[in-house]
Amino acid sequence: MTSDKSDPFMLLETFANPHPRRDYLIEHHVHEFTSTCPKTGQPDFGTIVIRYVAGERCVELKSLKLYLQTYRSRGIFYEDVTNVILDDLVRCTQPKWMQVQTTWSVRGGIHSVITAEHGVRP
Amino acid sequence: MTSDKSDPFMLLETFANPHPRRDYLIEHHVHEFTSTCPKTGQPDFGTIVIRYVAGERCVELKSLKLYLQTYRSRGIFYEDVTNVILDDLVRCTQPKWMQVQTTWSVRGGIHSVITAEHGVRP
Amino acid sequence: MTSDKSDPFMLLETFANPHPRRDYLIEHHVHEFTSTCPKTGQPDFGTIVIRYVAGERCVELKSLKLYLQTYRSRGIFYEDVTNVILDDLVRCTQPKWMQVQTTWSVRGGIHSVITAEHGVRP
Amino acid sequence: MTSDKSDPFMLLETFANPHPRRDYLIEHHVHEFTSTCPKTGQPDFGTIVIRYVAGERCVELKSLKLYLQTYRSRGIFYEDVTNVILDDLVRCTQPKWMQVQTTWSVRGGIHSVITAEHGVRP
Amino acid sequence: MTSDKSDPFMLLETFANPHPRRDYLIEHHVHEFTSTCPKTGQPDFGTIVIRYVAGERCVELKSLKLYLQTYRSRGIFYEDVTNVILDDLVRCTQPKWMQVQTTWSVRGGIHSVITAEHGVRP
Amino acid sequence: MTSDKSDPFMLLETFANPHPRRDYLIEHHVHEFTSTCPKTGQPDFGTIVIRYVAGERCVELKSLKLYLQTYRSRGIFYEDVTNVILDDLVRCTQPKWMQVQTTWSVRGGIHSVITAEHGVRP
Amino acid sequence: MTSDKSDPFMLLETFANPHPRRDYLIEHHVHEFTSTCPKTGQPDFGTIVIRYVAGERCVELKSLKLYLQTYRSRGIFYEDVTNVILDDLVRCTQPKWMQVQTTWSVRGGIHSVITAEHGVRP
Amino acid sequence: MTSDKSDPFMLLETFANPHPRRDYLIEHHVHEFTSTCPKTGQPDFGTIVIRYVAGERCVELKSLKLYLQTYRSRGIFYEDVTNVILDDLVRCTQPKWMQVQTTWSVRGGIHSVITAEHGVRP
Amino acid sequence: MTSDKSDPFMLLETFANPHPRRDYLIEHHVHEFTSTCPKTGQPDFGTIVIRYVAGERCVELKSLKLYLQTYRSRGIFYEDVTNVILDDLVRCTQPKWMQVQTTWSVRGGIHSVITAEHGVRP
Amino acid sequence: MTSDKSDPFMLLETFANPHPRRDYLIEHHVHEFTSTCPKTGQPDFGTIVIRYVAGERCVELKSLKLYLQTYRSRGIFYEDVTNVILDDLVRCTQPKWMQVQTTWSVRGGIHSVITAEHGVRP
Repeated sequence: MTSDKSDPFMLLETFANPHPRRDYLIEHHVHEFTSTCPKTGQPDFGTIVIRYVAGERCVELKSLKLYLQTYRSRGIFYEDVTNVILDDLVRCTQPKWMQVQTTWSVRGGIHSVITAEHGVRP
Repeated sequence: MTSDKSDPFMLLETFANPHPRRDYLIEHHVHEFTSTCPKTGQPDFGTIVIRYVAGERCVELKSLKLYLQTYRSRGIFYEDVTNVILDDLVRCTQPKWMQVQTTWSVRGGIHSVITAEHGVRP
Repeated sequence: MTSDKSDPFMLLETFANPHPRRDYLIEHHVHEFTSTCPKTGQPDFGTIVIRYVAGERCVELKSLKLYLQTYRSRGIFYEDVTNVILDDLVRCTQPKWMQVQTTWSVRGGIHSVITAEHGVRP
Repeated sequence: MTSDKSDPFMLLETFANPHPRRDYLIEHHVHEFTSTCPKTGQPDFGTIVIRYVAGERCVELKSLKLYLQTYRSRGIFYEDVTNVILDDLVRCTQPKWMQVQTTWSVRGGIHSVITAEHGVRP
Repeated sequence: MTSDKSDPFMLLETFANPHPRRDYLIEHHVHEFTSTCPKTGQPDFGTIVIRYVAGERCVELKSLKLYLQTYRSRGIFYEDVTNVILDDLVRCTQPKWMQVQTTWSVRGGIHSVITAEHGVRP
Repeated sequence: MTSDKSDPFMLLETFANPHPRRDYLIEHHVHEFTSTCPKTGQPDFGTIVIRYVAGERCVELKSLKLYLQTYRSRGIFYEDVTNVILDDLVRCTQPKWMQVQTTWSVRGGIHSVITAEHGVRP
Repeated sequence: MTSDKSDPFMLLETFANPHPRRDYLIEHHVHEFTSTCPKTGQPDFGTIVIRYVAGERCVELKSLKLYLQTYRSRGIFYEDVTNVILDDLVRCTQPKWMQVQTTWSVRGGIHSVITAEHGVRP
Repeated sequence: MTSDKSDPFMLLETFANPHPRRDYLIEHHVHEFTSTCPKTGQPDFGTIVIRYVAGERCVELKSLKLYLQTYRSRGIFYEDVTNVILDDLVRCTQPKWMQVQTTWSVRGGIHSVITAEHGVRP
Repeated sequence: MTSDKSDPFMLLETFANPHPRRDYLIEHHVHEFTSTCPKTGQPDFGTIVIRYVAGERCVELKSLKLYLQTYRSRGIFYEDVTNVILDDLVRCTQPKWMQVQTTWSVRGGIHSVITAEHGVRP
Repeated sequence: MTSDKSDPFMLLETFANPHPRRDYLIEHHVHEFTSTCPKTGQPDFGTIVIRYVAGERCVELKSLKLYLQTYRSRGIFYEDVTNVILDDLVRCTQPKWMQVQTTWSVRGGIHSVITAEHGVRP
């Protein structure tokens, strides 16, 4: 697989799972996320919960923060960004199971929640 | 299937599911909904949650808002409106699974919640 | 079945289930209920949740309110009133499944919740 | 002043203020109150807060409960019942200051709060 | 002052203040209100709190509900509707003091609250 | 089985289950409970939830309150008191299923919850 | 002033106010308090807030806890216990200002709050 | 005063106060705000409340949203941005009184709130 | 197994499970926990929930508190500390099932929750 | 005044108030604070709110965090630490007004709040 430096995925770093023989649950609740609506050009705001059972690698928190900040000026829809984040995190950590859930602020009296999973929860 | 322009269903628009190979959950929480009680002619107020696992198509949010606004002056009972919204959304998106849940404000010291589903949740 | 006019059950009215081919959930949350304690003669206060999957008939809301008001001066215990309301509502609507849950205010530092069901939830 | 036994006021009992030389605040929060709407004949439900700085007498709690239960079958408007309860409690306790605040359940999408005072808060 | 039947103000009814010699506070919390944005034609949703110390007349609750429903299809801005409701209620009840406070749902990530008063609170 | 009058168990009274042919859930939430720590002699405070599906007998509420008050001066550990209350209630009501859950106030920055069950929930 | 060892007041200990030249506010929120109702013999449960601006002495927390535990078996009314605790704490700390506020659990659908003060808040 | 098009202030639009003879309170609660920390280059997230009593002009909501979005990529400290927003809004609306309050997300276990006012609240 | 006194594990004490024949759930909610981040040297703060079904031994609460205090100056990552606490508690109590869940305060706009289990919940 | 490097006060840094001509309110809410009880040697946990109207200097947030961390191993009472923090912050920022409020976790069923101020709020 080839990637160039400008791929946000390259920002993600991992560390060795310190207890790889036990299946345990890791959750990261991201309180601050913003991207841009590709249709209106207006900013979208949301929160993200990442839940996973690690394989050999865990995602490093500071690199996760920097990775998510790359969406600040990207135009991308709710459904898409949720799946792309899941794909990127699965690619770098190879988890036994992972779920990404995004919750978005109100637009036109409606707020949305998107939940995507990879693998089967042990 | 024939429809005339005055059918609110015609307002609903869809877009291609960007990740059709993954079964993921989409929720739209509608904070503002109002229709009319066919018995008393008085306005009813409620909130709606739409949850679905998309097939090939997703419902477009702005068109969903405009579609739901057509109920503002329609006289329709709680149980009926819940099922009609579900039928219309199923017809236009052909989801793998969909749930519509309506919660209504207090009338005579009682508030009601109606929950209808289509298909089996993957 | 014979009933006389003074039976509170006679107050309950029903209407035809508008979507009988779909099993969907109907909930009525009753915020205001009062009966009388048969032991002390003191008023009891509570709230009631009625959940059901309708068969051919749905219970009409205004008649439900009037029916529940007949308990205002009846002396009846928590466990009993919960089962009697369930029996009466089952008798008039013949649901596929029904649950009645009553929650009572504090008496002597204790509050009680009684939950009775009829049938198997589809 | 003459009163007959059927006057609910006669139910109210008092006891001597145990610390009459200090102006201190007494609050009774009544969680359960019901009366009848004189217009519709339908029951009203509410909560009541009674706040006062006692003079020589304090209102006895059990007698207060029995007094308030007499409204269960009385037809009386929100504004009226609040002032009548205040008048009765002032008459029997002669407080330095008293406030009666009633909060009513939702009717037609509106709930009301009525607050009446007697005297100047020390 | 002349008014024609189509003026929503004509819907407002009053009743005699039952305790005019005491200055007491009346609050009506309106949970359900909707009007139309004159700029976008989109519906606005809000809640309203009306607080007043009555003079000789109190506003009748059912007429208040019907009056507020006339805004359902009127195009009017937040700041304007708050002041117009206050003006109409002052005109029909001549209160010693009155406050109208409207709270609006989120639009573009912003929600607004408008608070207007008439007279000096006793 | 022999018991002497000083056994708190003797305080518990029961009444006939009014609907023994239906398996329904009874919950009593005890807001006020206090016992004594056998190690420190200091008072412990907690709340208790009793949930059960009755057999032929239900526990009478006032006798339950008096029974629980006997722990006020008994030195007994969290784990023990939870199981002893369950044993006593099972002995007097012979339920189809019963759960006792005790929640204790903070001690040294830690609060505890103990949950014991008897039988299999129908 | 003479006191015998059995006076609960004797349990209260004080320490020197570490910053006597600044008027600052000290609050102790007591989550667990129980006494006995002199009328029914039943236990009462409550919470207490003690607020004061110290003079030369502050009340020591562990001694405050032991002092309050002496009420566990004392029969004393709400209004009385609030004033007695205030009197005892004023006697031992000589504060510039002190307030004692007791909040009691629900009895007969009513809960009470009593608030007594000594001195003028600086 | 001269301004060039790139000044965010130029985005702000106003409309005539529809009720200039009454002093009433307008509040706009901005749920979504983000700027950049000039020290770390990291994004800051916050919420803003704008409260004012208008003079002749009110701030138009959509232009307010666009104005606030210009901070998305500006490096500016909490204390500074609060005062700059206040200055800009005062300059364009000339209010009788205005308050800007910003609340910021947690950084290093600390969150901050800054509140600045212009004029005297009528 | 050999351990030296400086192993925090040596601080843990147990007592005999008073009801070993019944599988019941014990939960300890630790409100106050702090350790040190090995990367930044900055303190971390969290809360811990320990849930278990005891075998022959229960963990003694005061010794648990002292054991957890040993982490105050230890540099250890979230994922690691959760598993180490679980290992230590399993080693000293040999439970039928145990779960340790740690919840950490916000760092860089993200908070984490780690949940590890030992054995199968009965 | 002479200070040596080991004085925690030396850690505090300030920056120039960007808007010194306006009296505005700055609040820092510290979610994580821990010190040591000088009597028991046990850790204390709390939260702190610092509110001030700056003079010429504002306290820099990162230095505030490092300053507060020096209390981690200091034995100091609630009343004392609150006043010492206030004194140190007043010494380095010379504010027009400042308030320090500390809230402590439950000890023996009691939690405390200490509030100290310097100067008169403008």
